Amino acid sequence: MSKIKVTNFTISLDGFGAGTNQSMKEPLGIGGEELHTWMFPTKRFRAMGGKNDGTEGIDNDFVEKAFENVGAWIMGRNMFGPIRGNWTDDEWKGWWGEDPPYHVPVFVLTHYERKPVKMKGGTTFHFVTTGVKSALEEAKKAADGRDIRIGGGVSTIRQFLQAGYVDEIHLAISPLFLGSGEHLFSGIDMLNLGFNNIQRIEGEQATHIIITKG
Amino acid sequence: MSKIKVTNFTISLDGFGAGTNQSMKEPLGIGGEELHTWMFPTKRFRAMGGKNDGTEGIDNDFVEKAFENVGAWIMGRNMFGPIRGNWTDDEWKGWWGEDPPYHVPVFVLTHYERKPVKMKGGTTFHFVTTGVKSALEEAKKAADGRDIRIGGGVSTIRQFLQAGYVDEIHLAISPLFLGSGEHLFSGIDMLNLGFNNIQRIEGEQATHIIITKG
Repeated sequence: MSKIKVTNFTISLDGFGAGTNQSMKEPLGIGGEELHTWMFPTKRFRAMGGKNDGTEGIDNDFVEKAFENVGAWIMGRNMFGPIRGNWTDDEWKGWWGEDPPYHVPVFVLTHYERKPVKMKGGTTFHFVTTGVKSALEEAKKAADGRDIRIGGGVSTIRQFLQAGYVDEIHLAISPLFLGSGEHLFSGIDMLNLGFNNIQRIEGEQATHIIITKG
Repeated sequence: MSKIKVTNFTISLDGFGAGTNQSMKEPLGIGGEELHTWMFPTKRFRAMGGKNDGTEGIDNDFVEKAFENVGAWIMGRNMFGPIRGNWTDDEWKGWWGEDPPYHVPVFVLTHYERKPVKMKGGTTFHFVTTGVKSALEEAKKAADGRDIRIGGGVSTIRQFLQAGYVDEIHLAISPLFLGSGEHLFSGIDMLNLGFNNIQRIEGEQATHIIITKG
């Protein structure tokens, strides 16, 4: 069955999934990039940058697994790019260049209309201005029985959690503090949402938590 | 050198150190006891209840270590007992019976005066009505060069953190959600407080994090 899942999403010890002041230079906000240091050396992540090296092991397995059976992505526009407000031109096509690592349709939540952008390798960015529910409906059609991955950022995941749409979460906890930023679970009662089945797996550089409804 | 430390303090994945609605029956609030399930089976914890069994390993080592070189404890009155407001009688002497597991002076923060209560095995409960700073001064004298352990609960630890008094924290992260309760780090910028040195040790049932000033 097609699942709606959050995978490879990293939070700090103080619960932040991104830093403050996101910008072109610091897309994950101040300190936000450090959250992902567990992922950067992995073989699968290095391959996304065209490199043929990197670590293998539990952390790498999680990065691998996060891409398996994904038929469509949904992400917030702040994850897609640093531009806010109207799309002033069609120049910005995401962070990854001509061949992004998604290879499936990606539905970008935004308040501003824009025509789809077709990239190399199977990725097409669709811009959805009608909210999370219709983004999910479109993604389901596009995914054709495979899973839908809610990519982030924090605000997008929170909206999907609160709407009760998420089936499974793979959280990585990075052993560091951000001090401030966007809090993932603040004000969200995960028990109340039915997430009472939890598995902990120790990675090399992060603690991995698999969260499902029991 | 004498350190001021928080040890064996457990939080949930959503950052809570205790549940809501603390009471005589649920001293750690709703769901709060579950936080500590990693600790209950350990040999050292079982010994506190007079049992001669239990698990050994990393989790047990942390429980052991938390009692080492402690010359005095400081705790909030809600950790000492379920009574709120005035001490109506001298009946309540903590949760542990006649011979509590502290074996050193324990300074209980309260707004209500009460005479010291001397227990068996070296524990004396002193009631401090003049705030965290004077509790710390009294504890330092009593500890005589050994460490001071800030026992909890959440509110007490937050006060000591915010005042900049804490040198070292051993946090255990339990792989569960509480959904609501008392949040340990909310509004506290641990980076700003200088806690940038972090070590992660995976235990059998919890993730242990050692936090010091780098």
